[in-house]
Amino acid sequence: MISSGAGRFTLRATEGAARRGTLSLAHGDVETPAFMPVGTAATIKGLTPDDLRAFGTQIVLANTYHLWLRPGRETIEALGGLHAFMCWDRNILTDSGGFQVFSLESRRELSEHGVRFRSHLDGSEHEFTPENVVAFQEDVGVDVAMTLDVCVKLPAPAGEIDQAVRLTSAWAQRCAAARRRPETALFGVVQGGLDERSRERSARELVALELPGYAIGGLSVGETREELHRISRFTAALLPAHKPRYLMGVGTVSDLLAGIDGGIDLFDCVYPTRCGRNGRALGRTEDLNIKNAAFARDARPLDETCACYVCATYTRAYVSHLFRADEMLGPRLLSYHNLALFSQLMAEARDAIAAGHWAAFRNQHLHPMSP
Amino acid sequence: MISSGAGRFTLRATEGAARRGTLSLAHGDVETPAFMPVGTAATIKGLTPDDLRAFGTQIVLANTYHLWLRPGRETIEALGGLHAFMCWDRNILTDSGGFQVFSLESRRELSEHGVRFRSHLDGSEHEFTPENVVAFQEDVGVDVAMTLDVCVKLPAPAGEIDQAVRLTSAWAQRCAAARRRPETALFGVVQGGLDERSRERSARELVALELPGYAIGGLSVGETREELHRISRFTAALLPAHKPRYLMGVGTVSDLLAGIDGGIDLFDCVYPTRCGRNGRALGRTEDLNIKNAAFARDARPLDETCACYVCATYTRAYVSHLFRADEMLGPRLLSYHNLALFSQLMAEARDAIAAGHWAAFRNQHLHPMSP
Repeated sequence: MISSGAGRFTLRATEGAARRGTLSLAHGDVETPAFMPVGTAATIKGLTPDDLRAFGTQIVLANTYHLWLRPGRETIEALGGLHAFMCWDRNILTDSGGFQVFSLESRRELSEHGVRFRSHLDGSEHEFTPENVVAFQEDVGVDVAMTLDVCVKLPAPAGEIDQAVRLTSAWAQRCAAARRRPETALFGVVQGGLDERSRERSARELVALELPGYAIGGLSVGETREELHRISRFTAALLPAHKPRYLMGVGTVSDLLAGIDGGIDLFDCVYPTRCGRNGRALGRTEDLNIKNAAFARDARPLDETCACYVCATYTRAYVSHLFRADEMLGPRLLSYHNLALFSQLMAEARDAIAAGHWAAFRNQHLHPMSP
Repeated sequence: MISSGAGRFTLRATEGAARRGTLSLAHGDVETPAFMPVGTAATIKGLTPDDLRAFGTQIVLANTYHLWLRPGRETIEALGGLHAFMCWDRNILTDSGGFQVFSLESRRELSEHGVRFRSHLDGSEHEFTPENVVAFQEDVGVDVAMTLDVCVKLPAPAGEIDQAVRLTSAWAQRCAAARRRPETALFGVVQGGLDERSRERSARELVALELPGYAIGGLSVGETREELHRISRFTAALLPAHKPRYLMGVGTVSDLLAGIDGGIDLFDCVYPTRCGRNGRALGRTEDLNIKNAAFARDARPLDETCACYVCATYTRAYVSHLFRADEMLGPRLLSYHNLALFSQLMAEARDAIAAGHWAAFRNQHLHPMSP
């Protein structure tokens, strides 16, 4: 086992549990709290790296499961690694593939050794082990790799949660031992469902491995919003203050604000881009179904408080027309706006924490945004 | 009838029939020969106005038929006209809607007065007349409007061609008389199928109207490539040298080069954007089906001679991956490249004509490109 040089986290300010920090990675600093746009197949759907840089993106997420199957490690390596392949010169975090494998319940077979599964593309058989998912992530050159974990769909019986916690810890230890590349920071994933004692045990066992960062997994998988917020806050408090905390698969604007309030530093979710493809314009005070006839002659920008290129350029009327005419520019523009709005909200949250105004910022935004 | 102030055409150089000119319109000069990207529904599919400006686009085409039905004149007017609606500050040419109406054969009814048709969207009944299509185009504020013409699918009996020529001339006269807006230049459309005497008659009758420009219509509708090139060259020679000539619905790289060689100044076609959506990367010496497995690890740009953003940034391997993974960034990048390549070829053609090297340029490009 080697210790990683990358992943230093500097805590700059706190207010309550909320934190303002800087995560230093191989492709530059990530100012936190930060939202990571999701690029499942090595592309944030519809957007270019230039688009992402234009609204200040410092890190994106890609999916090991999908990249493993297509285009595959050899292709990515042949093109110079994942950054060169997708033309992205800032940071990349990949998940371990565990979440996707456990989403495909009927297609996988779990053992102590790892998890066998069939490709959703062609039915071919594959196996993920703690060792080979670390090797894959290091081989394609990511800045943050995730340990292979066992993710359980909620609600779940206690025995299943126990097994998930036990295997996740054992696999995290094997992942840590498998590391070879100092530029890749390996983050562990805390499991434990909605059971606080299981979360405690999982966090304790992972923290003992002294990994450079920790994620909270196994949420956004069927629980209520109240449970999500309670468990993420509870789990964040179990993690070391001087290491980054990443809440996986979250979320909406109100979920992000609740997460930051509970001590989370990093988030990822398909929500803003999926909404963008489906015609939902995210806003600071309300979301818009842009296809609604009410917007057909609305000359205002998507969100009047948003400083993004789309809001500076286009009207609701035009974006509404694009969606009603099924024009591909519509999803492009709306995905851009939604991610840019998240990026602005995270920047404002960072400023608010640094200035000691977090509570006021949160209260101002949380109530109108709550679903 | 008022005479239009816009549409002045300055012939800068010629070589054989090929012409290098400048068309001065209300939203700036168009250097010719030029290719006009097609934005049927007030959007060039997948691309922004910034993208179009980045590769030097000076004029785009939009479709009266489609805009008439959706979003409709009132919406476009309420948003400040078509330029403001689609956020495009350079020139716009709209066709008259005739081509689309005559493509929907079963849904239309032709008379001296105009053409009644049913909407392909909702079956609602509409009528185009020479007067109302000019009013529509002027009301939405386009820079070049087209006269309402009768377009015949080839091959066609002589009687049908005769009727098309007669009605097209009569309607062009009524269109000219209906003009109210000096900033909109009205172009006539020469019909006549593949019959040279019909083309002569049509051109003579339209030229007598002293319109600021002339299009060659009724081609790219079922004839052979040889017939297309022969008739467009023949018809171009019937048109006044000091007015712009626009070959409608053309074409491929080799068609554009043949057109320029025959004296054409303006072109439009969905070909580069449609190819872009379908995974066909246009090239100077060969086109690529980018989904082909041969490109999966090909680190070269789409076209090694192309200076566009896409070719400067991405590999064939990555674009190939995007198409195989059905990712929407693929069509966006390929549409951009295909239009940017056309834009570069037109700029090079202009330079070649101005420098007296047109014949060499044409011969260098025509042979490898020919289908």
